[in-house]
Amino acid sequence: MPVAARKPAVSPAGLTAVEIAAAVASGKTTCEAVARAHLARIEEREPQVLAWQYLNPDQVIEQARALDRKRVRGPLAGVPFGIKDIIDTCDMPTEMGSPIYAGHRPKGDATCVALSRKAGGVLMGKTVTTEFANRHPGKTRNPYDPTRTPGGSSSGSAAAVADGMVPLAIGTQTTGSTIRPASFCGVFGYRPTYGDLRCVGVKEAAGFLDTLGLLARSIEDIALYRDVLTGGAPQPIPEQPRAPRIGFCRTLFWPRVEPGTQKMIEDAAKKLAGAGATVKDVDLPAEFQDIEDTHLAISSYEFARNFTWEIENHWDKISETLRNNRLKHGLACSFERYRKARDNAERCRELLPQVMGDCDVLLTASAAGEAPVGLSLTGDASFCLTWTTTHVPCITLPVFKGPHGLPIGLQLVARRGADRELFAAARWAYNVLT
Amino acid sequence: MPVAARKPAVSPAGLTAVEIAAAVASGKTTCEAVARAHLARIEEREPQVLAWQYLNPDQVIEQARALDRKRVRGPLAGVPFGIKDIIDTCDMPTEMGSPIYAGHRPKGDATCVALSRKAGGVLMGKTVTTEFANRHPGKTRNPYDPTRTPGGSSSGSAAAVADGMVPLAIGTQTTGSTIRPASFCGVFGYRPTYGDLRCVGVKEAAGFLDTLGLLARSIEDIALYRDVLTGGAPQPIPEQPRAPRIGFCRTLFWPRVEPGTQKMIEDAAKKLAGAGATVKDVDLPAEFQDIEDTHLAISSYEFARNFTWEIENHWDKISETLRNNRLKHGLACSFERYRKARDNAERCRELLPQVMGDCDVLLTASAAGEAPVGLSLTGDASFCLTWTTTHVPCITLPVFKGPHGLPIGLQLVARRGADRELFAAARWAYNVLT
Repeated sequence: MPVAARKPAVSPAGLTAVEIAAAVASGKTTCEAVARAHLARIEEREPQVLAWQYLNPDQVIEQARALDRKRVRGPLAGVPFGIKDIIDTCDMPTEMGSPIYAGHRPKGDATCVALSRKAGGVLMGKTVTTEFANRHPGKTRNPYDPTRTPGGSSSGSAAAVADGMVPLAIGTQTTGSTIRPASFCGVFGYRPTYGDLRCVGVKEAAGFLDTLGLLARSIEDIALYRDVLTGGAPQPIPEQPRAPRIGFCRTLFWPRVEPGTQKMIEDAAKKLAGAGATVKDVDLPAEFQDIEDTHLAISSYEFARNFTWEIENHWDKISETLRNNRLKHGLACSFERYRKARDNAERCRELLPQVMGDCDVLLTASAAGEAPVGLSLTGDASFCLTWTTTHVPCITLPVFKGPHGLPIGLQLVARRGADRELFAAARWAYNVLT
Repeated sequence: MPVAARKPAVSPAGLTAVEIAAAVASGKTTCEAVARAHLARIEEREPQVLAWQYLNPDQVIEQARALDRKRVRGPLAGVPFGIKDIIDTCDMPTEMGSPIYAGHRPKGDATCVALSRKAGGVLMGKTVTTEFANRHPGKTRNPYDPTRTPGGSSSGSAAAVADGMVPLAIGTQTTGSTIRPASFCGVFGYRPTYGDLRCVGVKEAAGFLDTLGLLARSIEDIALYRDVLTGGAPQPIPEQPRAPRIGFCRTLFWPRVEPGTQKMIEDAAKKLAGAGATVKDVDLPAEFQDIEDTHLAISSYEFARNFTWEIENHWDKISETLRNNRLKHGLACSFERYRKARDNAERCRELLPQVMGDCDVLLTASAAGEAPVGLSLTGDASFCLTWTTTHVPCITLPVFKGPHGLPIGLQLVARRGADRELFAAARWAYNVLT
């Protein structure tokens, strides 16, 4: 039996990034004070949550003091952030959730880390990832219930944000590796339009699919972090000009959604309609019938080629899970099969705008239900793969509670390039639903 | 005045990869003997050509002996290959043409290196790159004339192949960094369909544009190496079923082609028509009018973000050339401008098949003319940028000689995914023209 689910306490560290940057900018607090509050939260909760692969409090304080000395006033001034441990850092190990990379020290920071620091952020440490952002789990537990998975592969990033250890964290997504853990941990999770945020210094799983993923406790923080990572000046989320037009898109995977979750999503659609949104059903055409196979061929073919060095030199250090699933599939997938899958993905991508018609966003499941009991699996990612494969932006909103009191997200999807419109619609929907 | 151009002597090391692998497989030679012949060629010519950033003969012999002991019989058994020095190697430094990375030792091999080794290849060393595969040149000279550029950014890879130091080398291309040096050095250069060959472990310049580039002295070697790098079993180049249908596509950049080169390309088109090809003019529509700006916005925006760590931490070690051109452009380019450019690139990409109509391939310039005199610039890359930006496969064939006796290439371009058809047409054309 799971322990009773409980909302993690909001500590003094529970401010959003927007609030922290404003407090630092106005001199109401210092980067060091903010860092210490978050370190205290981590000290209190880490033994239960195990979100961190690497965390060195002295190094954190040192960064914060340096920012205070320089009176740094960037858009993330003093904001503590966590980085999934497949992302390079020049001053911390990057171990990829794999013994092959134990103690590995990259030369430089990944682009997303360097841009976060340039904006005044304080890198708290490296968050736990599954092995190479695939399925073999790390040590992290769901902060709502330690017997349950936090989801993956961005396990530590989602758990750390949910638990108030950091307001912002970066993960990645190749299938559902940001949206799913965000849903299970009750935070906002955002996958940007493919190609918008640079992935230099991030260990590639499958380049045709990989993006960064952002995790936060408010939509405004997600939007702020996106702007920082494009290298631009942050802009407010646009006002939603009218109640949005929403397409309710159950997808092929609807039967995998638990009945209770189905009902909550259907009720949410009604509530949004009641608040003025136009809500209509949107069905995906026949070209999407093979989307799961398409995603599997692309992700597995690329993954198995990408890890040739590890396979050839460190086979014995690769988990059975990875060997017998992703790598087995990928090594057996021919280039011709892979190319056909890529062509099919492109066809679906090109079709999606007309499938959406006049809808601003699609509404769909983030996950089947609450985080499953057990730590050996990270949950079903199929509710994300249609969107991942078609390169569109997605956000999950923490709006539901499951039968055990654990959070469940609701996913909104927009057209490629319409990330800011997605934020506007998501904020409107979130305000209606909470 | 340039010294008289001369064809580099074909040494005993001048065999193709196909010939070497066959000789090793049949026991006619050993990996060690092949490696020694190529080392001898390098020893003789390196003082003039300066193609290598890192070369350790003991390490080469050790690899070759290990392959001989294991009686390795892969498709590249015993084939010496060179790797552009922005590509990671686990046992050699990877210095990126930048003092920032002096002595840098990556943890593992890039995918392309690991796949080459898995196929039995012998990594000879790291070939000279311009700074971060951009414009600031390395030390390499044109093997035909040491007062002239070998082209860039894959300078050492092209020069080493041209000079018989290796039969195969890997470069990269973000604008014209494989096709241009191949044209200047008189070898085959191939840029694959975007996304076909994995770039894990290759320092990203601009991910929307980057691909590997292959350099060799025969089309068969190019095709073989492509198959190895997809992780598949090599297949022969298909027979060209009939004389190809060729679209002569001068592009916007035709006025930048030297008159003598224009005439050679026009004569070649006639000769191909005389041999049975259908040759007709193909003009690019209005959407391609801004392709140069489109390419500049994408490459510069991405480059400037990708190198945030280097910019923030090592600005003083970045060349003036890079600071005042690519980085200046890129830092000034907004995300919105970049997104528009990406949209335009996609529009052109989607239009290209209908522009090509029933043509199998397009025929176009590889470069303005011979390699220019001087080592401070690597030549005009504009003849490649249309194809790079639209993600189509290209090959340059060493078929012309310029007024000083230096080589000039002719470029063929095919539809995305039609790489093997491109090889078939290229072989047909090469046989007609030589």
